[in-house]
Amino acid sequence: MKKQLIDLKNWLKENQGDVAFINDPANVAYLTGYESDPHERVLALLVFPDADPFLFTPALEMDDARNGAWEYDVFGYLDNENPWEIIAEKVKAAVPTVSNWAVEKEFLTLARFEALQNEFPTATFKQDLTSFMQRLKLIKTPTEIKTMIEAGKWADFAFDIGFNAIKEGVMEQEIVAEIEYQLKKKGIMQMSFSTIVLAGDNAASPHGNPGQRKIQKDELVLFDLGVVYDGYTSDATRTVAYGEPSQKAQEIYAIVLKAHQAALDAVKPGITAGELDTIARDIITDAGYGPYFNHRLGHGLGSSVHEFPSIMAGNPLVIEEGMCFSIEPGIYVPGVAGVRIEDCLYVTKDGCEVFTHTPKEYTVIG
Amino acid sequence: MKKQLIDLKNWLKENQGDVAFINDPANVAYLTGYESDPHERVLALLVFPDADPFLFTPALEMDDARNGAWEYDVFGYLDNENPWEIIAEKVKAAVPTVSNWAVEKEFLTLARFEALQNEFPTATFKQDLTSFMQRLKLIKTPTEIKTMIEAGKWADFAFDIGFNAIKEGVMEQEIVAEIEYQLKKKGIMQMSFSTIVLAGDNAASPHGNPGQRKIQKDELVLFDLGVVYDGYTSDATRTVAYGEPSQKAQEIYAIVLKAHQAALDAVKPGITAGELDTIARDIITDAGYGPYFNHRLGHGLGSSVHEFPSIMAGNPLVIEEGMCFSIEPGIYVPGVAGVRIEDCLYVTKDGCEVFTHTPKEYTVIG
Repeated sequence: MKKQLIDLKNWLKENQGDVAFINDPANVAYLTGYESDPHERVLALLVFPDADPFLFTPALEMDDARNGAWEYDVFGYLDNENPWEIIAEKVKAAVPTVSNWAVEKEFLTLARFEALQNEFPTATFKQDLTSFMQRLKLIKTPTEIKTMIEAGKWADFAFDIGFNAIKEGVMEQEIVAEIEYQLKKKGIMQMSFSTIVLAGDNAASPHGNPGQRKIQKDELVLFDLGVVYDGYTSDATRTVAYGEPSQKAQEIYAIVLKAHQAALDAVKPGITAGELDTIARDIITDAGYGPYFNHRLGHGLGSSVHEFPSIMAGNPLVIEEGMCFSIEPGIYVPGVAGVRIEDCLYVTKDGCEVFTHTPKEYTVIG
Repeated sequence: MKKQLIDLKNWLKENQGDVAFINDPANVAYLTGYESDPHERVLALLVFPDADPFLFTPALEMDDARNGAWEYDVFGYLDNENPWEIIAEKVKAAVPTVSNWAVEKEFLTLARFEALQNEFPTATFKQDLTSFMQRLKLIKTPTEIKTMIEAGKWADFAFDIGFNAIKEGVMEQEIVAEIEYQLKKKGIMQMSFSTIVLAGDNAASPHGNPGQRKIQKDELVLFDLGVVYDGYTSDATRTVAYGEPSQKAQEIYAIVLKAHQAALDAVKPGITAGELDTIARDIITDAGYGPYFNHRLGHGLGSSVHEFPSIMAGNPLVIEEGMCFSIEPGIYVPGVAGVRIEDCLYVTKDGCEVFTHTPKEYTVIG
């Protein structure tokens, strides 16, 4: 049995939990090796302190789930059956008493909670698996890091394709199309998120959507992208110059790079997430752009592109070896420029290593 | 104010609700015109019986939200702030008493529910907006249908690209890459879901993932795809023959087509969703393939690719003019063939019209 499943069983024993109900597909995949997006259907993993766990899937996925890495039971339900009745029946068959449920409070919907409660009206659903799962996934194994290094290489490949696609008059969306086409042709079927390419003032919106805006001479172009490789994600941002952007844009670039590098240099076991945010934020604030850096410094990543830890002001979480997260300061001045520089990294014994190696020095294309 | 927002305000009045908390991004977009994927951050629309509604977004989205179609207040929070405290403060400023909350039970997580409850410890959260929102979105306006017709045209375009990309030895994933590339180049930036191209026995898994399986002569190739156009989705499936597949595969195709066509012919106001499922399922069962049609007949679609109504056995929902849903019977025989034929349609006064027009007769490519 996978070590992480044993950890969960032990956690249930220590916390007097009778059953754990996992229905975040990312967590199901992490614990079982079975990857699936069930959309609105019910996919769940049920784990017990002593009895064997089981997977519960829509009927049309049962064969896939049984033919994969998962070695325990797989039960399922048809679209016109009540999944909660079947889950209840299987749970009751697995354990004699079911008083304490442990659930993912940050994923379980109120409707599903009520459906479970309806089947087990005297049980409590107070135990939250969220922190346990976050902790479990927080420290990556060498195998996970190796996979994420591969995912990072594909992000570097994507930047290369993207930079080469920059030409005067080409639309943001055409560059996105080119990047994803070249990746898919090589077997990278899923991006971590919709690829972002934003030119000039469009990049001043930190989460803008690429569109028909055409690349013009003498502006900055922002790329934020990542891929899913063997179940693990990459995520990186580069902002490059096409021609010669304004002095102001270049100044902003230099400040963001300084903040990014300072935070990166500070990453090592023992520092807190909040301290890292402060190091980068102080540089941007001292340069007068504090209000234009309106998001946290970074986020964890792994099998999900956004997970624990959150690298943000006030977070007392102490950084440990094996954690993986982004360092992504940005400055977004409407009408002037938007710059973000992001690398994700893994923490080593005395520092960190980044997953993406596309140069971060101010780079001029064309 | 948008009619749908007025409907929601009236619903609150009729149901003695003091505030509606909407945080499904698809519903927020539907009611406000502001489209965003906030990932793990909080995006919500707060609506009151009398007071003006407000949008609540992550700080980095506030400018976008204010510059869009939304004409009321937009409040926000920084990553290191507690969004629930800010929401509570703004709600208390909007209405004098907040006793009854109406929430989306099928979307609101237990953690968010508990966070709201923590701010309003004496309030109740019993009212579920799910059915109201499903009903609200169920009957499409002529404008929505017009947009979905456009989304359907792009799905037809995608089939055309895909069929032309079929060649011996080409990988499933290469065909996906080609389809999405040609769409993105034309400005279709988002698919309704990851495009599915499955060849031969791979297609026997109804929700399989395209991979490095190469197209071989004399097999069936299944395409399931759709696009997001102006906030509305399309979704269609075609299964075409490359060369001359087995007699068994051809027989299965004929049965699925017959079931599909029979259900389509039966769609009109007054029939129930369950009856439609039965019409298609009986044909497949009578032909001996009942156990291999292991999903419902169809699902609603609109601004989401899966929404109300569910076209499944036993559903007593009466079909009305303006509803939009899929008819997608399938037969999946492991090791033999997988066939699904899907069109989405809108219900007219006395029948229905489909959104996609790629031929459904048994089609041989190459």
